[in-house]
Amino acid sequence: MLVKSQVKYIQSLSQKKLREEEGVFVAEGPKIINELLAASNIDIKQLYATESWIATHRTVSASLDPGIITLVDNKELERISFLTTPNEVLGVFNKPSFTTPIKAKACISILLDTIQDPGNLGTILRCADWFGINQVICSEECADIFSTKVVQSSMGSISRVQVLYTDPDVFLKENGDVLVYAALLDGKNLYDYPKLKEGIIIVGNESKGIRASLIREGIYKITIPRKGQAESLNAAVATGIILSHLT
Amino acid sequence: MLVKSQVKYIQSLSQKKLREEEGVFVAEGPKIINELLAASNIDIKQLYATESWIATHRTVSASLDPGIITLVDNKELERISFLTTPNEVLGVFNKPSFTTPIKAKACISILLDTIQDPGNLGTILRCADWFGINQVICSEECADIFSTKVVQSSMGSISRVQVLYTDPDVFLKENGDVLVYAALLDGKNLYDYPKLKEGIIIVGNESKGIRASLIREGIYKITIPRKGQAESLNAAVATGIILSHLT
Repeated sequence: MLVKSQVKYIQSLSQKKLREEEGVFVAEGPKIINELLAASNIDIKQLYATESWIATHRTVSASLDPGIITLVDNKELERISFLTTPNEVLGVFNKPSFTTPIKAKACISILLDTIQDPGNLGTILRCADWFGINQVICSEECADIFSTKVVQSSMGSISRVQVLYTDPDVFLKENGDVLVYAALLDGKNLYDYPKLKEGIIIVGNESKGIRASLIREGIYKITIPRKGQAESLNAAVATGIILSHLT
Repeated sequence: MLVKSQVKYIQSLSQKKLREEEGVFVAEGPKIINELLAASNIDIKQLYATESWIATHRTVSASLDPGIITLVDNKELERISFLTTPNEVLGVFNKPSFTTPIKAKACISILLDTIQDPGNLGTILRCADWFGINQVICSEECADIFSTKVVQSSMGSISRVQVLYTDPDVFLKENGDVLVYAALLDGKNLYDYPKLKEGIIIVGNESKGIRASLIREGIYKITIPRKGQAESLNAAVATGIILSHLT
Protein backbone atom coordinates (compact mmCIF):
# COMPACT_ATOMS: atom_id res chain seq x y z
CA MET A 1 0.00 0.00 0.00
CA LEU A 2 1.08 3.46 -0.93
CA VAL A 3 1.62 6.04 1.81
CA LYS A 4 1.25 9.78 1.41
CA SER A 5 4.95 10.52 1.79
CA GLN A 6 5.76 8.18 -1.09
CA VAL A 7 3.29 9.95 -3.39
CA LYS A 8 4.73 13.30 -2.39
CA TYR A 9 8.30 12.11 -2.94
CA ILE A 10 7.65 10.72 -6.42
CA GLN A 11 5.69 13.78 -7.48
CA SER A 12 8.56 15.98 -6.28
CA LEU A 13 10.84 14.19 -8.75
CA SER A 14 9.14 15.95 -11.63
CA GLN A 15 11.43 18.83 -10.62
CA LYS A 16 14.98 18.75 -11.91
CA LYS A 17 16.32 20.37 -8.74
CA LEU A 18 14.93 17.60 -6.54
CA ARG A 19 16.10 14.86 -8.89
CA GLU A 20 19.58 16.34 -8.67
CA GLU A 21 19.53 16.64 -4.87
CA GLU A 22 18.43 13.02 -4.58
CA GLY A 23 20.56 11.73 -7.48
CA VAL A 24 17.61 9.74 -8.78
CA PHE A 25 15.18 9.48 -11.67
CA VAL A 26 11.85 7.79 -12.41
CA ALA A 27 11.15 5.21 -15.11
CA GLU A 28 7.89 3.43 -15.96
CA GLY A 29 6.56 0.40 -17.77
CA PRO A 30 7.74 -3.23 -17.88
CA LYS A 31 10.07 -2.84 -20.87
CA ILE A 32 12.23 0.00 -19.51
CA ILE A 33 12.04 -1.22 -15.91
CA ASN A 34 13.34 -4.66 -16.94
CA GLU A 35 16.19 -3.11 -18.86
CA LEU A 36 17.17 -0.80 -16.03
CA LEU A 37 16.94 -3.55 -13.41
CA ALA A 38 19.32 -5.61 -15.55
CA ALA A 39 21.78 -2.73 -15.96
CA SER A 40 24.87 -3.18 -13.78
CA ASN A 41 25.51 0.55 -13.40
CA ILE A 42 22.08 1.59 -12.12
CA ASP A 43 20.66 0.77 -8.69
CA ILE A 44 16.98 0.53 -7.96
CA LYS A 45 15.83 2.55 -4.97
CA GLN A 46 12.07 2.04 -4.94
CA LEU A 47 9.77 -0.06 -7.08
CA TYR A 48 5.99 0.36 -7.22
CA ALA A 49 4.43 -2.62 -8.94
CA THR A 50 0.95 -3.97 -9.54
CA GLU A 51 0.09 -7.59 -8.78
CA SER A 52 0.02 -8.32 -12.51
CA TRP A 53 3.62 -7.13 -12.92
CA ILE A 54 4.82 -9.12 -9.90
CA ALA A 55 3.01 -12.24 -11.16
CA THR A 56 4.86 -12.12 -14.47
CA HIS A 57 8.19 -11.08 -12.93
CA ARG A 58 8.55 -13.48 -9.99
CA THR A 59 12.29 -14.07 -10.46
CA VAL A 60 13.10 -10.40 -10.82
CA SER A 61 11.00 -9.32 -7.87
CA ALA A 62 12.33 -12.14 -5.69
CA SER A 63 15.86 -10.94 -6.37
CA LEU A 64 15.10 -7.48 -4.98
CA ASP A 65 15.36 -6.43 -1.35
CA PRO A 66 11.70 -6.70 -0.15
CA GLY A 67 11.92 -3.20 1.34
CA ILE A 68 12.29 -1.83 -2.15
CA ILE A 69 8.98 -3.11 -3.55
CA THR A 70 5.61 -1.55 -2.80
CA LEU A 71 2.57 -3.39 -4.09
CA VAL A 72 0.13 -0.91 -5.62
CA ASP A 73 -3.26 -1.23 -7.28
CA ASN A 74 -4.09 0.56 -10.53
CA LYS A 75 -5.65 3.53 -8.72
CA GLU A 76 -2.52 4.01 -6.64
CA LEU A 77 -0.27 3.68 -9.67
CA GLU A 78 -2.29 6.40 -11.35
CA ARG A 79 -1.55 8.72 -8.43
CA ILE A 80 2.22 8.43 -8.87
CA SER A 81 2.54 7.84 -12.61
CA PHE A 82 3.74 10.54 -15.01
CA LEU A 83 2.23 8.70 -17.99
CA THR A 84 -1.22 9.32 -19.42
CA THR A 85 -1.67 5.54 -19.39
CA PRO A 86 0.15 4.12 -16.32
CA ASN A 87 1.81 0.83 -17.16
CA GLU A 88 2.04 -1.77 -14.34
CA VAL A 89 5.27 -0.60 -12.71
CA LEU A 90 7.18 2.53 -11.73
CA GLY A 91 10.73 2.61 -10.42
CA VAL A 92 12.89 5.20 -8.71
CA PHE A 93 16.51 4.57 -9.69
CA ASN A 94 19.84 6.05 -8.69
CA LYS A 95 21.44 7.79 -11.64
CA PRO A 96 23.78 5.56 -13.66
CA SER A 97 27.46 5.52 -12.87
CA PHE A 98 30.07 5.30 -15.61
CA THR A 99 33.65 4.26 -14.94
CA THR A 100 35.37 5.70 -18.00
CA PRO A 101 35.51 9.46 -18.41
CA ILE A 102 34.10 11.18 -21.52
CA LYS A 103 36.79 11.66 -24.17
CA ALA A 104 36.71 12.71 -27.79
CA LYS A 105 39.81 10.85 -29.06
CA ALA A 106 39.47 7.51 -30.85
CA CYS A 107 35.67 7.45 -30.81
CA ILE A 108 32.58 9.18 -32.15
CA SER A 109 30.72 11.63 -29.91
CA ILE A 110 27.52 13.51 -30.48
CA LEU A 111 27.33 17.11 -29.34
CA LEU A 112 23.80 18.46 -28.92
CA ASP A 113 23.23 22.18 -29.00
CA THR A 114 19.98 23.11 -27.24
CA ILE A 115 17.85 20.05 -28.01
CA GLN A 116 14.85 21.18 -26.01
CA ASP A 117 12.20 18.61 -26.81
CA PRO A 118 12.50 15.75 -24.29
CA GLY A 119 11.15 13.23 -26.83
CA ASN A 120 13.82 14.24 -29.33
CA LEU A 121 16.57 14.02 -26.72
CA GLY A 122 15.50 10.56 -25.56
CA THR A 123 15.18 9.35 -29.15
CA ILE A 124 18.68 10.65 -29.92
CA LEU A 125 20.11 8.72 -26.94
CA ARG A 126 18.35 5.56 -28.18
CA CYS A 127 19.76 6.18 -31.66
CA ALA A 128 23.28 6.70 -30.34
CA ASP A 129 22.95 3.45 -28.39
CA TRP A 130 21.74 1.55 -31.49
CA PHE A 131 24.75 2.74 -33.46
CA GLY A 132 27.21 1.96 -30.69
CA ILE A 133 27.95 5.52 -29.64
CA ASN A 134 28.23 5.74 -25.90
CA GLN A 135 28.76 9.38 -25.24
CA VAL A 136 26.66 12.44 -25.85
CA ILE A 137 27.65 15.97 -24.93
CA CYS A 138 24.74 18.29 -24.21
CA SER A 139 24.79 22.08 -23.99
CA GLU A 140 23.31 23.31 -20.71
CA GLU A 141 20.20 24.45 -22.63
CA CYS A 142 19.26 20.87 -23.60
CA ALA A 143 16.39 19.12 -21.81
CA ASP A 144 17.38 17.13 -18.70
CA ILE A 145 18.06 13.48 -19.60
CA PHE A 146 16.57 12.40 -16.27
CA SER A 147 13.20 14.05 -16.90
CA THR A 148 10.52 11.39 -17.25
CA LYS A 149 9.84 12.09 -20.92
CA VAL A 150 13.48 11.71 -21.87
CA VAL A 151 13.85 8.53 -19.81
CA GLN A 152 10.74 7.02 -21.43
CA SER A 153 11.72 7.86 -25.00
CA SER A 154 15.33 6.73 -24.48
CA MET A 155 13.93 3.22 -23.83
CA GLY A 156 16.63 2.28 -21.32
CA SER A 157 19.55 3.70 -23.31
CA ILE A 158 20.44 6.09 -20.48
CA SER A 159 22.10 3.13 -18.77
CA ARG A 160 24.55 2.74 -21.68
CA VAL A 161 25.00 6.20 -23.12
CA GLN A 162 27.00 8.57 -20.95
CA VAL A 163 25.85 12.19 -21.07
CA LEU A 164 27.90 15.23 -20.13
CA TYR A 165 26.30 18.67 -19.75
CA THR A 166 28.85 21.35 -20.53
CA ASP A 167 29.59 24.46 -22.58
CA PRO A 168 29.91 23.20 -26.17
CA ASP A 169 32.41 25.94 -27.10
CA VAL A 170 34.67 24.86 -24.24
CA PHE A 171 34.30 21.17 -25.15
CA LEU A 172 35.30 21.81 -28.76
CA LYS A 173 38.23 23.99 -27.67
CA GLU A 174 39.49 21.33 -25.28
CA ASN A 175 39.31 18.76 -28.08
CA GLY A 176 40.75 20.93 -30.82
CA ASP A 177 42.62 18.00 -32.37
CA VAL A 178 39.43 16.01 -33.09
CA LEU A 179 37.58 16.57 -36.38
CA VAL A 180 34.17 18.18 -36.06
CA TYR A 181 31.12 17.50 -38.26
CA ALA A 182 27.98 19.62 -38.14
CA ALA A 183 24.48 18.75 -39.39
CA LEU A 184 23.43 21.75 -41.48
CA LEU A 185 21.17 22.53 -44.41
CA ASP A 186 23.93 24.02 -46.59
CA GLY A 187 26.73 21.48 -46.26
CA LYS A 188 28.27 18.73 -48.34
CA ASN A 189 26.20 15.63 -49.17
CA LEU A 190 26.29 13.17 -46.25
CA TYR A 191 26.91 10.31 -48.67
CA ASP A 192 30.15 11.89 -49.88
CA TYR A 193 31.66 11.40 -46.42
CA PRO A 194 33.55 8.20 -45.57
CA LYS A 195 32.80 6.21 -42.42
CA LEU A 196 34.22 7.79 -39.25
CA LYS A 197 36.48 6.28 -36.61
CA GLU A 198 36.81 9.50 -34.65
CA GLY A 199 34.87 12.73 -34.63
CA ILE A 200 32.42 15.01 -32.90
CA ILE A 201 29.06 15.30 -34.66
CA ILE A 202 27.09 18.44 -33.80
CA VAL A 203 23.28 18.46 -34.00
CA GLY A 204 21.48 21.73 -33.37
CA ASN A 205 18.29 23.09 -31.92
CA GLU A 206 14.92 22.08 -33.38
CA SER A 207 14.20 25.51 -34.83
CA LYS A 208 17.38 27.61 -34.57
CA GLY A 209 19.92 24.98 -35.61
CA ILE A 210 23.52 25.16 -34.37
CA ARG A 211 24.77 28.33 -32.65
CA ALA A 212 27.12 30.38 -34.86
CA SER A 213 30.09 30.14 -32.48
CA LEU A 214 30.32 26.38 -33.05
CA ILE A 215 30.50 26.64 -36.85
CA ARG A 216 34.24 27.33 -36.90
CA GLU A 217 36.62 27.23 -39.80
CA GLY A 218 37.75 23.73 -40.65
CA ILE A 219 34.62 21.92 -39.52
CA TYR A 220 32.88 19.61 -41.95
CA LYS A 221 29.33 20.55 -42.84
CA ILE A 222 27.00 17.63 -43.45
CA THR A 223 23.69 17.80 -45.31
CA ILE A 224 21.19 15.01 -45.79
CA PRO A 225 20.10 15.29 -49.42
CA ARG A 226 16.53 16.53 -49.77
CA LYS A 227 14.42 15.02 -52.51
CA GLY A 228 11.06 16.58 -51.60
CA GLN A 229 9.75 19.79 -50.13
CA ALA A 230 9.85 19.62 -46.32
CA GLU A 231 11.81 22.55 -44.95
CA SER A 232 13.81 20.43 -42.54
CA LEU A 233 14.02 17.05 -40.86
CA ASN A 234 13.27 16.29 -37.22
CA ALA A 235 16.49 16.49 -35.15
CA ALA A 236 16.35 12.86 -33.98
CA VAL A 237 15.62 11.56 -37.49
CA ALA A 238 18.52 13.60 -38.88
CA THR A 239 20.84 12.22 -36.17
CA GLY A 240 19.73 8.67 -37.01
CA ILE A 241 20.37 9.11 -40.73
CA ILE A 242 23.79 10.67 -40.14
CA LEU A 243 24.86 7.99 -37.66
CA SER A 244 23.57 5.21 -39.90
CA HIS A 245 25.87 6.40 -42.65
CA LEU A 246 28.94 7.54 -40.69
CA THR A 247 29.30 4.69 -38.19
CA MET B 1 -12.02 39.69 -29.46
CA LEU B 2 -12.81 36.09 -28.82
CA VAL B 3 -16.43 35.04 -28.23
CA LYS B 4 -17.54 32.03 -26.22
CA SER B 5 -18.84 30.10 -29.22
CA GLN B 6 -15.44 30.33 -30.89
CA VAL B 7 -13.68 28.93 -27.82
CA LYS B 8 -16.20 26.12 -27.65
CA TYR B 9 -15.85 25.36 -31.35
CA ILE B 10 -12.05 25.17 -31.29
CA GLN B 11 -12.02 23.08 -28.12
CA SER B 12 -14.49 20.69 -29.76
CA LEU B 13 -11.95 20.08 -32.53
CA SER B 14 -9.79 18.08 -30.13
CA GLN B 15 -12.29 15.30 -30.93
CA LYS B 16 -11.72 13.31 -34.10
CA LYS B 17 -15.46 12.91 -34.67
CA LEU B 18 -16.06 16.65 -34.74
CA ARG B 19 -13.01 17.32 -36.93
CA GLU B 20 -14.43 14.80 -39.40
CA GLU B 21 -17.93 16.27 -39.33
CA GLU B 22 -16.51 19.73 -39.99
CA GLY B 23 -13.75 18.59 -42.37
CA VAL B 24 -11.27 20.81 -40.57
CA PHE B 25 -8.14 20.72 -38.43
CA VAL B 26 -6.21 23.10 -36.18
CA ALA B 27 -2.61 24.24 -36.62
CA GLU B 28 -0.55 26.62 -34.49
CA GLY B 29 2.55 28.77 -34.58
CA PRO B 30 3.93 31.12 -37.27
CA LYS B 31 6.04 28.51 -39.08
CA ILE B 32 3.27 25.98 -39.78
CA ILE B 33 0.60 28.63 -40.28
CA ASN B 34 2.70 30.35 -42.95
CA GLU B 35 3.29 27.09 -44.75
CA LEU B 36 -0.38 26.12 -44.67
CA LEU B 37 -1.54 29.59 -45.78
CA ALA B 38 0.80 29.28 -48.77
CA ALA B 39 -0.45 25.78 -49.67
CA SER B 40 -2.74 25.85 -52.70
CA ASN B 41 -4.72 22.78 -51.62
CA ILE B 42 -5.69 23.95 -48.12
CA ASP B 43 -8.17 26.71 -47.32
CA ILE B 44 -8.10 28.75 -44.15
CA LYS B 45 -11.40 28.96 -42.31
CA GLN B 46 -10.56 30.91 -39.17
CA LEU B 47 -7.38 32.58 -37.98
CA TYR B 48 -6.77 33.73 -34.41
CA ALA B 49 -3.74 35.98 -34.30
CA THR B 50 -2.04 38.22 -31.77
CA GLU B 51 -1.07 41.78 -32.63
CA SER B 52 2.58 40.73 -32.79
CA TRP B 53 1.83 38.12 -35.47
CA ILE B 54 -0.26 40.55 -37.52
CA ALA B 55 2.45 43.21 -37.26
CA THR B 56 5.04 40.87 -38.77
CA HIS B 57 2.66 39.36 -41.34
CA ARG B 58 0.97 42.44 -42.82
CA THR B 59 0.96 41.17 -46.42
CA VAL B 60 -0.35 37.74 -45.49
CA SER B 61 -3.08 39.06 -43.22
CA ALA B 62 -4.11 41.74 -45.73
CA SER B 63 -4.61 39.02 -48.34
CA LEU B 64 -7.14 37.21 -46.14
CA ASP B 65 -10.86 37.87 -45.99
CA PRO B 66 -11.20 40.13 -42.88
CA GLY B 67 -13.99 37.94 -41.56
CA ILE B 68 -11.51 35.13 -41.17
CA ILE B 69 -9.14 36.88 -38.75
CA THR B 70 -9.88 37.38 -35.06
CA LEU B 71 -7.43 39.52 -33.13
CA VAL B 72 -6.66 37.88 -29.79
CA ASP B 73 -4.47 38.78 -26.84
CA ASN B 74 -2.14 36.25 -25.21
CA LYS B 75 -4.71 35.35 -22.53
CA GLU B 76 -7.32 34.59 -25.19
CA LEU B 77 -4.85 32.60 -27.26
CA GLU B 78 -4.12 30.50 -24.17
CA ARG B 79 -7.81 29.65 -23.90
CA ILE B 80 -7.97 28.16 -27.38
CA SER B 81 -4.43 26.81 -27.82
CA PHE B 82 -3.60 23.10 -27.60
CA LEU B 83 0.08 23.86 -26.99
CA THR B 84 1.72 24.16 -23.58
CA THR B 85 3.32 27.36 -24.88
CA PRO B 86 0.85 29.10 -27.24
CA ASN B 87 2.66 30.66 -30.15
CA GLU B 88 1.16 33.88 -31.61
CA VAL B 89 -1.32 32.35 -34.03
CA LEU B 90 -3.85 29.52 -34.38
CA GLY B 91 -5.67 28.58 -37.54
CA VAL B 92 -8.63 26.38 -38.38
CA PHE B 93 -8.13 24.96 -41.87
CA ASN B 94 -10.20 22.87 -44.22
CA LYS B 95 -8.56 19.50 -44.79
CA PRO B 96 -6.24 19.41 -47.82
CA SER B 97 -7.59 18.28 -51.15
CA PHE B 98 -5.51 16.15 -53.50
CA THR B 99 -6.29 15.81 -57.19
CA THR B 100 -4.44 12.59 -57.98
CA PRO B 101 -5.65 9.37 -56.41
CA ILE B 102 -3.33 7.18 -54.28
CA LYS B 103 -1.63 4.51 -56.39
CA ALA B 104 1.19 2.08 -55.74
CA LYS B 105 2.58 1.71 -59.30
CA ALA B 106 5.60 3.72 -60.43
CA CYS B 107 6.26 5.34 -57.05
CA ILE B 108 7.27 4.64 -53.47
CA SER B 109 4.58 4.46 -50.79
CA ILE B 110 4.86 4.04 -47.05
CA LEU B 111 2.39 1.76 -45.31
CA LEU B 112 2.07 2.34 -41.57
CA ASP B 113 0.70 -0.43 -39.40
CA THR B 114 -0.69 0.98 -36.13
CA ILE B 115 1.63 3.92 -35.55
CA GLN B 116 -0.10 5.17 -32.45
CA ASP B 117 2.13 7.94 -31.19
CA PRO B 118 1.02 11.20 -32.84
CA GLY B 119 4.55 12.63 -32.65
CA ASN B 120 5.91 9.62 -34.53
CA LEU B 121 3.19 9.82 -37.17
CA GLY B 122 3.77 13.54 -37.79
CA THR B 123 7.52 13.02 -37.93
CA ILE B 124 7.08 10.20 -40.45
CA LEU B 125 4.97 12.47 -42.69
CA ARG B 126 7.66 15.15 -42.49
CA CYS B 127 10.29 12.53 -43.36
CA ALA B 128 8.28 11.25 -46.31
CA ASP B 129 7.92 14.84 -47.53
CA TRP B 130 11.70 15.46 -47.21
CA PHE B 131 12.46 12.40 -49.30
CA GLY B 132 9.87 13.24 -51.96
CA ILE B 133 7.33 10.58 -51.05
CA ASN B 134 3.86 11.96 -51.33
CA GLN B 135 1.67 9.13 -50.20
CA VAL B 136 1.31 7.31 -46.93
CA ILE B 137 -1.14 4.50 -46.26
CA CYS B 138 -2.25 4.19 -42.63
CA SER B 139 -4.01 1.25 -41.00
CA GLU B 140 -7.19 2.35 -39.23
CA GLU B 141 -5.40 1.88 -35.89
CA CYS B 142 -2.90 4.67 -36.62
CA ALA B 143 -3.27 8.04 -34.89
CA ASP B 144 -5.40 10.59 -36.76
CA ILE B 145 -3.21 12.81 -38.96
CA PHE B 146 -5.48 15.77 -38.22
CA SER B 147 -5.03 15.58 -34.45
CA THR B 148 -3.15 18.63 -33.23
CA LYS B 149 -0.04 16.73 -32.19
CA VAL B 150 0.34 15.09 -35.60
CA VAL B 151 -0.27 18.37 -37.40
CA GLN B 152 2.35 20.14 -35.24
CA SER B 153 5.03 17.48 -35.63
CA SER B 154 4.40 17.12 -39.38
CA MET B 155 5.49 20.78 -39.72
CA GLY B 156 3.20 21.52 -42.64
CA SER B 157 3.89 18.31 -44.56
CA ILE B 158 0.21 17.31 -44.38
CA SER B 159 -0.40 19.74 -47.25
CA ARG B 160 1.94 17.76 -49.50
CA VAL B 161 1.73 14.16 -48.32
CA GLN B 162 -1.54 12.42 -49.12
CA VAL B 163 -2.73 9.98 -46.47
CA LEU B 164 -5.17 7.13 -46.96
CA TYR B 165 -6.66 5.23 -44.03
CA THR B 166 -7.50 1.69 -45.08
CA ASP B 167 -7.08 -1.99 -44.28
CA PRO B 168 -3.40 -2.72 -45.02
CA ASP B 169 -4.13 -6.34 -46.01
CA VAL B 170 -6.63 -5.14 -48.60
CA PHE B 171 -4.24 -2.46 -49.88
CA LEU B 172 -1.45 -5.01 -50.38
CA LYS B 173 -3.83 -7.45 -52.06
CA GLU B 174 -5.09 -4.77 -54.44
CA ASN B 175 -1.50 -3.92 -55.34
CA GLY B 176 -0.18 -7.45 -55.58
CA ASP B 177 2.09 -6.58 -58.51
CA VAL B 178 4.11 -4.02 -56.52
CA LEU B 179 7.14 -5.16 -54.48
CA VAL B 180 6.77 -4.91 -50.73
CA TYR B 181 9.53 -4.09 -48.24
CA ALA B 182 9.10 -4.42 -44.49
CA ALA B 183 11.19 -2.85 -41.71
CA LEU B 184 12.00 -5.72 -39.35
CA LEU B 185 14.70 -6.72 -36.89
CA ASP B 186 15.55 -10.01 -38.64
CA GLY B 187 15.81 -8.99 -42.29
CA LYS B 188 18.56 -8.37 -44.81
CA ASN B 189 20.92 -5.43 -44.32
CA LEU B 190 19.31 -2.22 -45.61
CA TYR B 191 22.54 -1.29 -47.35
CA ASP B 192 22.41 -4.43 -49.51
CA TYR B 193 19.26 -3.11 -51.19
CA PRO B 194 19.49 -0.97 -54.32
CA LYS B 195 17.62 2.32 -54.67
CA LEU B 196 13.91 1.90 -55.33
CA LYS B 197 11.77 3.36 -58.10
CA GLU B 198 8.62 1.54 -57.02
CA GLY B 199 7.62 -0.24 -53.85
CA ILE B 200 5.56 -0.26 -50.69
CA ILE B 201 7.59 0.11 -47.50
CA ILE B 202 5.86 -1.18 -44.36
CA VAL B 203 6.70 0.27 -40.93
CA GLY B 204 5.10 -1.30 -37.88
CA ASN B 205 3.79 -0.41 -34.47
CA GLU B 206 6.09 1.13 -31.85
CA SER B 207 6.09 -1.95 -29.64
CA LYS B 208 4.46 -4.81 -31.55
CA GLY B 209 6.02 -4.21 -34.96
CA ILE B 210 4.22 -5.30 -38.14
CA ARG B 211 1.16 -7.58 -37.91
CA ALA B 212 1.87 -11.15 -39.02
CA SER B 213 -0.67 -11.12 -41.88
CA LEU B 214 1.37 -8.48 -43.72
CA ILE B 215 4.62 -10.46 -43.66
CA ARG B 216 3.73 -12.57 -46.69
CA GLU B 217 5.96 -14.76 -48.77
CA GLY B 218 7.96 -12.83 -51.32
CA ILE B 219 8.24 -9.61 -49.35
CA TYR B 220 11.68 -8.13 -48.74
CA LYS B 221 12.69 -7.81 -45.11
CA ILE B 222 14.86 -4.80 -44.33
CA THR B 223 17.01 -4.40 -41.22
CA ILE B 224 19.02 -1.36 -40.22
CA PRO B 225 22.35 -2.77 -39.02
CA ARG B 226 22.75 -2.43 -35.25
CA LYS B 227 26.19 -1.58 -33.94
CA GLY B 228 25.32 -1.03 -30.28
CA GLN B 229 22.91 -2.37 -27.71
CA ALA B 230 19.56 -0.58 -28.00
CA GLU B 231 16.78 -3.10 -28.50
CA SER B 232 15.16 -1.18 -31.32
CA LEU B 233 15.02 2.17 -33.08
CA ASN B 234 12.21 4.71 -32.85
CA ALA B 235 9.72 4.13 -35.72
CA ALA B 236 10.20 7.60 -37.24
CA VAL B 237 13.99 7.37 -37.06
CA ALA B 238 13.90 3.93 -38.70
CA THR B 239 11.65 5.28 -41.48
CA GLY B 240 14.04 8.18 -42.04
CA ILE B 241 17.09 5.90 -42.29
CA ILE B 242 15.32 3.52 -44.68
CA LEU B 243 14.03 6.32 -46.92
CA SER B 244 17.39 8.06 -46.93
CA HIS B 245 18.98 4.92 -48.37
CA LEU B 246 16.20 3.63 -50.65
CA THR B 247 15.08 6.86 -52.33
